[in-house]
Amino acid sequence: MKRPAILLYGASEADADVYYATGMFVPDPFLYLDTGARSLVVMSDLEIGRAREEADVDEVVSLSELNRELKNRGISAPGAADHAAFLLRRHRVRRVEVPDTFPFGLAERLRKRGIRVEARPAPFFRKRVVKRPDEIRAMERCQRANEEALAEAVRVLRKSRPNGKYLRHRGEVLTAEALRRVIHRTLLEFNCQGKSTIVSSGDQGCDPHNRGSGPLLAHASIILDIFPRSLETNYCSDMTRTVCRGRPSRELERLYDTVREGQELGCRRIRAGARGVDVHRPICALFEERGYKTEPRKGKMVGFFHGTGHGIGLDVHEPPRVGWNEDRLPAGAVVTCEPGLYYFGVGGVRIEDMLLVGRRRSRNLTRASKEFVI
Amino acid sequence: MKRPAILLYGASEADADVYYATGMFVPDPFLYLDTGARSLVVMSDLEIGRAREEADVDEVVSLSELNRELKNRGISAPGAADHAAFLLRRHRVRRVEVPDTFPFGLAERLRKRGIRVEARPAPFFRKRVVKRPDEIRAMERCQRANEEALAEAVRVLRKSRPNGKYLRHRGEVLTAEALRRVIHRTLLEFNCQGKSTIVSSGDQGCDPHNRGSGPLLAHASIILDIFPRSLETNYCSDMTRTVCRGRPSRELERLYDTVREGQELGCRRIRAGARGVDVHRPICALFEERGYKTEPRKGKMVGFFHGTGHGIGLDVHEPPRVGWNEDRLPAGAVVTCEPGLYYFGVGGVRIEDMLLVGRRRSRNLTRASKEFVI
Repeated sequence: MKRPAILLYGASEADADVYYATGMFVPDPFLYLDTGARSLVVMSDLEIGRAREEADVDEVVSLSELNRELKNRGISAPGAADHAAFLLRRHRVRRVEVPDTFPFGLAERLRKRGIRVEARPAPFFRKRVVKRPDEIRAMERCQRANEEALAEAVRVLRKSRPNGKYLRHRGEVLTAEALRRVIHRTLLEFNCQGKSTIVSSGDQGCDPHNRGSGPLLAHASIILDIFPRSLETNYCSDMTRTVCRGRPSRELERLYDTVREGQELGCRRIRAGARGVDVHRPICALFEERGYKTEPRKGKMVGFFHGTGHGIGLDVHEPPRVGWNEDRLPAGAVVTCEPGLYYFGVGGVRIEDMLLVGRRRSRNLTRASKEFVI
Repeated sequence: MKRPAILLYGASEADADVYYATGMFVPDPFLYLDTGARSLVVMSDLEIGRAREEADVDEVVSLSELNRELKNRGISAPGAADHAAFLLRRHRVRRVEVPDTFPFGLAERLRKRGIRVEARPAPFFRKRVVKRPDEIRAMERCQRANEEALAEAVRVLRKSRPNGKYLRHRGEVLTAEALRRVIHRTLLEFNCQGKSTIVSSGDQGCDPHNRGSGPLLAHASIILDIFPRSLETNYCSDMTRTVCRGRPSRELERLYDTVREGQELGCRRIRAGARGVDVHRPICALFEERGYKTEPRKGKMVGFFHGTGHGIGLDVHEPPRVGWNEDRLPAGAVVTCEPGLYYFGVGGVRIEDMLLVGRRRSRNLTRASKEFVI
């Protein structure tokens, strides 16, 4: 059976499917067409030299030549829909599958030109879920950089001293911003880039996507959630550690130990054939059993109120999910395991590893220590 | 007249329109609805605390409460289309305008639920084109960081010595990768982030989007194209300088002088009311007049084969364009002016400033020197 024709439109620097299909970084949107027998991209003069050398396709079509051809046929200002419709007709394709996120306006214009356009549910490239050996190596390299950055942050934290409420380092209050800069600078040395790295202490850490700002608290939980992208390979890694500089309260220590127990339980449950819920539910049950309730308090959620994990690869967040979902994890996927517990007044704790899903058991790609009090 | 209802769906960290509408960074896609009278976002438990404090909207709807409500109504696994359709019905909205890039799959599901969905051509928020004073200040701050990074790169180049074909610095061959790292590290100190920064010498620079790699050539053109984003404000800046360490050939010097003349001509032509073509065409004419032809040679383009400039703001590339287009520049837009000339064997030269379009004349937001031989 012939594969269905597929059409993509996006900038490969921002759209992982387009990068996956072409293997080439382009900052502006372009067309990718796979007729089922032959693949091609349409490139502006700006990209065409590089595309002919780098793009992993059968043919590179010149946008400017295409424009000349279409103008000769009476289309005064050809757009992406004209380009696509022309090429589809040339290859006798009348129906294309596009990603769920395909630009709506372009889909409408293609339909007006007689093309049948159908959205294929995510993941668009199912192959992206199961990683090839070179993809796994790229993610491991990115994870090594991640661990170097964490080690550097821990080194700075260890050199800092509790001074009243805050940590001080080299005579100044140590801030989330300064520690984030240490992390980003270290990542850069390994040709990786961090963005929105979370460095959040105390109550700030109870809001899981708060990046953290201002002075870092002594004797409190400090969440370090680092998810860089390799500038060389474009693959990502993701790791969270929670540490405390000073003397944590009994309550906070117990919170940490519980999350660690839940996280390690999750890691053991992650294997090929397991459903998201087979991993997520036992962690929720453990937390409940230990007395940690998940509920709204004063308009905010406390407890464990996010999923256990997510797939990772060319995107930091990609299928498969590990939460209440019922679909099964395939061998060869790379997913995170990152439960957390968050209580205002006590602190936020999250621990996250990255695992390669295996048939019997999974391989933990994360090597960093889980020491809490540093 | 009532404004039309608009609907957005995206991650504000990646989608500038969603960030513009909400003023809040969220890493995963969410719904934004403006009924014409009232604006709201739908947030997961993970984001809701922060959204209630930070999002610039009238209402923050809880995704988990919405899911409970929809499950009570018999929808077992509600998705974004169910959420949107429910909220639209509650506000008696039957027709929404969405960006041209709105996810096609979601638009289809909304239509199946009886909502009329129409794509509005880009720019979706026309207000985004004309910058507010705070936006201009944010871009100027980002440009100052850009200039610091350039200055640092020039400092390293000046310390390097021509040694045979290549530049040497501290006993090693100076590479594009090393110089890019210097630039990115400096940007980071100013809380800005560079990505795909171009550092390309000699023939590499003749491919305008080649990022550059390997040893930097002595006596050759080195293109430094830096377009960071502020991690604080999310606004961008964009600047290109071309420099030469050593003794350039006569031909290369003449190439540089011609691009500089064309670039300065372009800067003078950029003002409110000018069409793209009023800026672009005279530069092309000047280059032709000086004997610099634009044409394909051996399957690659040489000459001046890209536009003169582009709008910039929350995206590095955004409307308005400055090329062969006939639409007129509005006062208050910020655009780049960046002609270039590229000839294999001679070198690539591009010079780029960022200008605030004014009624009489424009204000050049770029302060860096245009010295060529350093």
